[in-house]
Amino acid sequence: MHKLIRPSLLLDSIKCRENISRAVDKARREKVVLRPHFKTHQSAVIGRWFREAGVDRITVSSVSMATYFAADGWKDITIAIPFNIHEAEEMNQLAGQLALHLFVTDPEPIALLGKMIRYPVGLFIEVDTGQHRSGVHPDDTERIEKILGQIRAFPHLRFEGFATHAGHSYSLSGDRERIRQVHRESLAMLDGLKTRYEAEYPGLLLSAGDTPTFSVAEGFAPLDEVRPGNFVFYDLMQVRIGSCTPDRIAVALACPVISVNPERAEAVIHGGAVHLSKEHLLRADGSVIFGAVTRLHDRGWESPGEEMYVKALSQEHGIIHLGNSREKLVPGDWVAVLPVHSCLAADLAGAYLSLEGDRIAAMRTAGV
Amino acid sequence: MHKLIRPSLLLDSIKCRENISRAVDKARREKVVLRPHFKTHQSAVIGRWFREAGVDRITVSSVSMATYFAADGWKDITIAIPFNIHEAEEMNQLAGQLALHLFVTDPEPIALLGKMIRYPVGLFIEVDTGQHRSGVHPDDTERIEKILGQIRAFPHLRFEGFATHAGHSYSLSGDRERIRQVHRESLAMLDGLKTRYEAEYPGLLLSAGDTPTFSVAEGFAPLDEVRPGNFVFYDLMQVRIGSCTPDRIAVALACPVISVNPERAEAVIHGGAVHLSKEHLLRADGSVIFGAVTRLHDRGWESPGEEMYVKALSQEHGIIHLGNSREKLVPGDWVAVLPVHSCLAADLAGAYLSLEGDRIAAMRTAGV
Repeated sequence: MHKLIRPSLLLDSIKCRENISRAVDKARREKVVLRPHFKTHQSAVIGRWFREAGVDRITVSSVSMATYFAADGWKDITIAIPFNIHEAEEMNQLAGQLALHLFVTDPEPIALLGKMIRYPVGLFIEVDTGQHRSGVHPDDTERIEKILGQIRAFPHLRFEGFATHAGHSYSLSGDRERIRQVHRESLAMLDGLKTRYEAEYPGLLLSAGDTPTFSVAEGFAPLDEVRPGNFVFYDLMQVRIGSCTPDRIAVALACPVISVNPERAEAVIHGGAVHLSKEHLLRADGSVIFGAVTRLHDRGWESPGEEMYVKALSQEHGIIHLGNSREKLVPGDWVAVLPVHSCLAADLAGAYLSLEGDRIAAMRTAGV
Repeated sequence: MHKLIRPSLLLDSIKCRENISRAVDKARREKVVLRPHFKTHQSAVIGRWFREAGVDRITVSSVSMATYFAADGWKDITIAIPFNIHEAEEMNQLAGQLALHLFVTDPEPIALLGKMIRYPVGLFIEVDTGQHRSGVHPDDTERIEKILGQIRAFPHLRFEGFATHAGHSYSLSGDRERIRQVHRESLAMLDGLKTRYEAEYPGLLLSAGDTPTFSVAEGFAPLDEVRPGNFVFYDLMQVRIGSCTPDRIAVALACPVISVNPERAEAVIHGGAVHLSKEHLLRADGSVIFGAVTRLHDRGWESPGEEMYVKALSQEHGIIHLGNSREKLVPGDWVAVLPVHSCLAADLAGAYLSLEGDRIAAMRTAGV
């Protein structure tokens, strides 16, 4: 930890690789293909750890991210967000060099896609199994058939199957039985669609993906593939949901203490919304928590207690509630903040510092 | 707007330069030095617009940001966050090339700073006038005198005065009279400190900075300088507070519509928490808003109405509530999202697209 100078997102590569191999093992046991979502880590280096564990196909959330991972040799990529027709030229370039799969939710832009893309592309119809973010309602066969009709007009567009993201599992904090129920309901809806369309489209695939159901549920038939992402790092939100224990969390923001207020039992850290994001959880007493705080040691960070947490964030300041922790922090000390949402903290960081002191590069979502 | 391909943070440079010149005029009228906070825009290009308007000293929120602006020729920089002793070497390099001012809140790390820094540095004692983020309580003269004693031990450390950030003005949504009262209370506390210490430290300075009080209040004596930042762009939060009207907002995130759900009166955009941050406001009915949505036109964006807003965000998806707006959005349309908090949206973007189609570079907070 002697390389620490300013707020840095630490990566425990041992925990991270364990999270990867557990997921690979579970997918193998459950007889589904693991197509992990790389939006969580956004790092070519970490991507290679997946490749070493036997993963050969991935999920991303933008064309830019697909381009980034294509440059590192990935040859089978699903962009799991309804496609943006203005990126047709970039998608065409990707389709020319690898197996590209897109998500479709609306019939209207398909004709333009078919005209602008010249290489073969696989299309999944995204189905809304209850999150109500994006996707076609599974009963809306009129819309599904309009989409299928549009796809059939272009020989290089191929309907591959149905995909969903059961993101409503995120709101089921701690209720593992309800998460399993969401999982079963989601599978039943996809199964119904398969039954309806497989005569016309033999071999159509079913794809689902979110970390809570993947972590908690067992029994994934009739799914062909799963697309969880967050499990690579986990975070406090996943602990709250019940997807993992705190010791599985593989990233923590190292922050220097820059001021201490003993009279308020608070410390100020350099570490704010530009490092952790403003994602938060509520404690039982209704107070807001932006991260759990613990001590660093030579080989990582201690298991966090309940007493110390980030109670407020501004752009670069964080306020630590010390409570009755009896921690005697002084300016210059380092603390570790376990993030509420590791995907957002990782995107903000743009790079990691391994516990061995190596900088691990990643991409960042670009603004222009 | 023909250059739009993916989510892009648009910058209306005319509005932005007007916001700058209004601030310069107000500071001149009020006879205070304007030392604008550059954490909002983080852009060398926009910094030059300030320089052209006569500004020659600035505020930043990190050593990295100071280093970035020093490289563009700024010669007088205040780092307005309690200093991080682990960055002493970087601070020393800055102090060797420009007038560097730091914030001090704790006596303990000053001796180490004095030993590690070899060039002259100015120190402001940060005072907590009510925000309770960082800073010494103005009545805690024991702590203030301990700090002053530590500073006196090092001839190249110079006590320059007292600084505050009346950030509690942010919570006074729409109550302009209460904001003015916070301003007056804050000034009274600083004035009390000046009276107490100016015999010993003749010419000591008083510095305060936040956009709400700077925008709303009049009468800034006995302040010597002001350090507002957000006014360069403004945002929905500042509209809510009463600092500005919506037509002063100078940035908006252009997002492509990627799916439409007429039955829920919703549209999905590519534009999520990695573009807008999860900063939100509450509407009168208790619902959450992550941005106001309006249409783009050739020379910018339309004034936003109340009907269309971003109701939910995930990592890269945004859900627009269309309400009774009768907007007939289709996939491929572009919309403009006015951000709740422009500082965070700008940090996430890392660059701007001007309405003239030019890319305007900026720095991003780095994670390692």
